[in-house]
Amino acid sequence: MMKFNENLENLKVYEAGKPIELVVREFGIEPKDVVKLASNENPNGTSPKVVEAVRDFATKMCLYPDDSYFELKGALASKFGVNEKNIILGAGSDQVLEFATKAKLKEGDKVLMNKVTFAMYEIYAKMCGAEIVRTEGLLHDSLQFKTTYDKLKPSIVFICVPNNPLGECITRAEVYDILSHLDKDTLAVVDCAYMEYAAYKNEAVAIDPKELIEKFPSAIYLGTFSKAYGLGGMRVGYGIGEESVIKSLYKVRPPFNIANLSACAALTALKDEEFVQKSIAENFEEMKRYEEFALVNGIKTIDSYTNFITYFFDSKSSKEIADALLRKGVIIRDLTSYALNGIRITIGTKAQNDRFFDEFKKVYS
Amino acid sequence: MMKFNENLENLKVYEAGKPIELVVREFGIEPKDVVKLASNENPNGTSPKVVEAVRDFATKMCLYPDDSYFELKGALASKFGVNEKNIILGAGSDQVLEFATKAKLKEGDKVLMNKVTFAMYEIYAKMCGAEIVRTEGLLHDSLQFKTTYDKLKPSIVFICVPNNPLGECITRAEVYDILSHLDKDTLAVVDCAYMEYAAYKNEAVAIDPKELIEKFPSAIYLGTFSKAYGLGGMRVGYGIGEESVIKSLYKVRPPFNIANLSACAALTALKDEEFVQKSIAENFEEMKRYEEFALVNGIKTIDSYTNFITYFFDSKSSKEIADALLRKGVIIRDLTSYALNGIRITIGTKAQNDRFFDEFKKVYS
Repeated sequence: MMKFNENLENLKVYEAGKPIELVVREFGIEPKDVVKLASNENPNGTSPKVVEAVRDFATKMCLYPDDSYFELKGALASKFGVNEKNIILGAGSDQVLEFATKAKLKEGDKVLMNKVTFAMYEIYAKMCGAEIVRTEGLLHDSLQFKTTYDKLKPSIVFICVPNNPLGECITRAEVYDILSHLDKDTLAVVDCAYMEYAAYKNEAVAIDPKELIEKFPSAIYLGTFSKAYGLGGMRVGYGIGEESVIKSLYKVRPPFNIANLSACAALTALKDEEFVQKSIAENFEEMKRYEEFALVNGIKTIDSYTNFITYFFDSKSSKEIADALLRKGVIIRDLTSYALNGIRITIGTKAQNDRFFDEFKKVYS
Repeated sequence: MMKFNENLENLKVYEAGKPIELVVREFGIEPKDVVKLASNENPNGTSPKVVEAVRDFATKMCLYPDDSYFELKGALASKFGVNEKNIILGAGSDQVLEFATKAKLKEGDKVLMNKVTFAMYEIYAKMCGAEIVRTEGLLHDSLQFKTTYDKLKPSIVFICVPNNPLGECITRAEVYDILSHLDKDTLAVVDCAYMEYAAYKNEAVAIDPKELIEKFPSAIYLGTFSKAYGLGGMRVGYGIGEESVIKSLYKVRPPFNIANLSACAALTALKDEEFVQKSIAENFEEMKRYEEFALVNGIKTIDSYTNFITYFFDSKSSKEIADALLRKGVIIRDLTSYALNGIRITIGTKAQNDRFFDEFKKVYS
């Protein structure tokens, strides 16, 4: 059998939220009866303006994208008050993570991340042959980040604000406190995939990319169109960093990494902030129902700054609950793979959440 | 300044064909007056059936793709008579190249490719710290591949059939002759991005992926939707290989690597082979004009099995010709970066080719 790179041997593969199609295939449930609250997509869908723009653009699918992504980078630069040279686009902010690890890491380097956090940090770092170091506590804690950093001097520190899959968010002051503590040669990846939600909930956690990279030239801000902007299927994210950092990441970027229709969708999405803000406001309105339900039923949860919430169980098995819900056509995310007896639920529309509670009450009682 | 991975230092960045938008911006030419014959896109655009399907699907942009890509992989498996486990999808066949290099190469490994061939082989291999070895002659030659292989024992051999950017195509017998010569542990990447064109022109060069991987389990076939299928902007390609090879490539595949709208477009494109065959027939009809023009004007060319043709010049500079055409709004590809005094022209529609000849006569005479 052919020999492949040894770094691959211990790689685990990312476990994606189950798609609607799979539930339809496996359990024979009608697509209209499936409620997917597993991947933190925007339950309001996509802005109608974006749908219209993409339909207009569809005849250009034959043409390669403008590989400079002049318009989209220009629009992001103007939104954030930075220069286009401070921006790199990725097929999801995921791909910017991949660029960052690939550009920075050598075999045997260490990377530091929270005990429970976004699974791709570990996967991309391991592809580079790096060693994974984690803090000890469940939630982000600036003191733990600093002391672990001092002990092990990792090359990259991942900070997820707010954190996926738990939903907590340390304050801007705490993020800055960690960043002030790092050597100039340590790359700090500040993953803000859910920042639009967090900033809406509490100004004290808001991270401004321009201020971030001016204060900390070795930090990179990651943002995405997959969540609040309603484009999870289109794979568009971005990194914002100091010019020389971005230049190094560019070296590992494949050409045409964003489909032209995806770039068109993202560009148009930036022009409909009203859709985004309305989605976020509704998200926190609906989240109250989940918080109240947890309180009334004695289910533990974590204060969430995102578009999802976690429920933790004492005696019942989260895997059994998730499986039982799945058979009813309700897809949520079991956290067993994170060694937690809990589930993560995306906040849906009112109707989707009604359905969740109906089914959850049956399987939980 | 932050230190990045040393392998990056000598990396050159891929030079993409200039997009229409850039010519519009730089030379103030109206978009309708720009003719792009630089990136080997299908000049007939995209099948109307695909445009319609994508427009219908556009409301689902918020949803992450089915990460198993069940339907698209199923359709490809049935087209080629292989199992779904023999297939991996990439954001363009480019990304499958990236997977192959990343999965196979260790620092210091050698890779073998033709003297002049697709630029991304070198770029991806260098990202892995590999050393590039090339054959000596301009065109693919099975003997040269074998003797160079024997001398240097590369870990990967790239065979581009037909070859980009030159257009020549060695026969299936010659490809098999090279492959028979390789050790079982050498990965052979058989890049068939333009194979639909080549197979139409001459059955003797056609490569069937099923036969290929059955005969040579260490070969991988690359195909794409970017050329004959008219989806250059959507970034969908695929690799077909023996199950354990595909499994190893899967380890370095990021989740959701194809946008959902792109997967929808590719799936629908497979259902309209008539559009593809019509595009290919027209391509070779129009190519005759380029061949005749070259003959009449004493311009050297290479017999092309693709949707592009090369023109080589004795005294005039290809760079100057390309620049002069660009200022007129005609974008073609200068081959100076390949150390060749020539240009590569995508075969366009009849009207686009008329325009090319009009402008070319002015700058060449």
